[in-house]
Amino acid sequence: MCELLGMSANVPTDICFSFAGFLHRGGGTGPHRDGWGIAFYEEGGYREFRDPHPSVDSPIARLIRDYPIKSHIVISHIRQANVGQVRLANTHPFTREMWGRPWCYAHNGQLEGWQELPLGVCRPIGSTDSEHAFCYLMGELRHHFPEPPEDPQALWALLHRCCERLRSKGVFNLLLSDGVRLYSYCSTKLAHITRRAPFGEANLSDAELNVNFAEHTTEHDVVSVLATEPLTDNEDWVRMVPGELLVWHDGEILARFLPEAD
Amino acid sequence: MCELLGMSANVPTDICFSFAGFLHRGGGTGPHRDGWGIAFYEEGGYREFRDPHPSVDSPIARLIRDYPIKSHIVISHIRQANVGQVRLANTHPFTREMWGRPWCYAHNGQLEGWQELPLGVCRPIGSTDSEHAFCYLMGELRHHFPEPPEDPQALWALLHRCCERLRSKGVFNLLLSDGVRLYSYCSTKLAHITRRAPFGEANLSDAELNVNFAEHTTEHDVVSVLATEPLTDNEDWVRMVPGELLVWHDGEILARFLPEAD
Repeated sequence: MCELLGMSANVPTDICFSFAGFLHRGGGTGPHRDGWGIAFYEEGGYREFRDPHPSVDSPIARLIRDYPIKSHIVISHIRQANVGQVRLANTHPFTREMWGRPWCYAHNGQLEGWQELPLGVCRPIGSTDSEHAFCYLMGELRHHFPEPPEDPQALWALLHRCCERLRSKGVFNLLLSDGVRLYSYCSTKLAHITRRAPFGEANLSDAELNVNFAEHTTEHDVVSVLATEPLTDNEDWVRMVPGELLVWHDGEILARFLPEAD
Repeated sequence: MCELLGMSANVPTDICFSFAGFLHRGGGTGPHRDGWGIAFYEEGGYREFRDPHPSVDSPIARLIRDYPIKSHIVISHIRQANVGQVRLANTHPFTREMWGRPWCYAHNGQLEGWQELPLGVCRPIGSTDSEHAFCYLMGELRHHFPEPPEDPQALWALLHRCCERLRSKGVFNLLLSDGVRLYSYCSTKLAHITRRAPFGEANLSDAELNVNFAEHTTEHDVVSVLATEPLTDNEDWVRMVPGELLVWHDGEILARFLPEAD
């Protein structure tokens, strides 16, 4: 299994602390030695860093850990290859422009029969089930909404239906963003925590590192972090339920979709 | 004016030497303080690094200078803003996926009336004339070739016609790649050099740095470098002529298009 890490915040926030713990799972405390990547939505745009080498040995990962890039939304992924060989083109996150916005996507899990998922304009560059599923998602959204919808509720409901279809094909834990909102969908494993005033201390589970958020924040800050498994051992993370889609904005949950009752 | 840097090679080659000189133009010896970016096509895929800060002060630029990423094709750009403010979304190179390939683009110059250039599926994320022109180019290629053409000559001829149209709107020096070939188009300024056995020494014009390529290459290596202005002061660079399009593959010129005679 791969590992996902996401962040949504109401002020530009660096993810150095969480990334330091996450990094260790890439060949340190975890088995995810097949590449990693991280994408940042900053005030003025979007950028990503990807490396097909284990994150724990990567000079680029060390740069990200030590160079605070402040952003509203972050999506990161550490890969343990199952479908598709270890190469840069198969390294998450994946990106496509739609409606003049940079969409970013990372997936944890494995799908069956993914080759049959219909594609629109977006085509995979690499050979993974994950990127094919991303191109399918983008195709469905664009097919129903050639222009960005005025009412985002309809978009979110469509996204939830597409995610449910993907979950029916295997394991599909997802982080997705267009730079305004962050979407998290749980198939088997995804947990989140929202930090706000009064801020406390946090201890990383995977590395000997402790941070007192009170020293780095103001009382108005709201910062939510999502991860496959909780990253700290002294806070109460919320585990998402299978089939749940959360829409995040400025660190808060804006909407929640659950599977239809059988 | 911005500065362009490109490379096409028949073996995976690092660009550390050329980039070291180029870096100095970003706020060091040059006035290009408004961001920089670099894209690498490696054996297994594509990645890019972009920073809205001057390259000479950028920790990410220092990483690229010191961490040899070996690739067949490189496109880099240092920006001096004219159209569009200084922000990450306006920082070259720009990227779009088409036909399952990552297309990368950097532009030097300024265009008039670029808002009227028709767009297809690609939409600009930022606010520059450069990115709009890129989306126009992608739209024209996709419109004429919904699937990648069997005969690439027709594609190249179309690309040349589109570049000529863009040149008629101002200054349009271009580097473009799909990861297989590198395209260079000259409107006013673009120079190139091809290094092959017997390799000699080279002195950077912008920094006190000297390299003996014979120590870093084999006799089969062919490495071509393109830049707005020659980067070394002891080699014979070839200056392109206005309206000239060159198609590069494995360090060699595969095709050359010139403006039609008046």
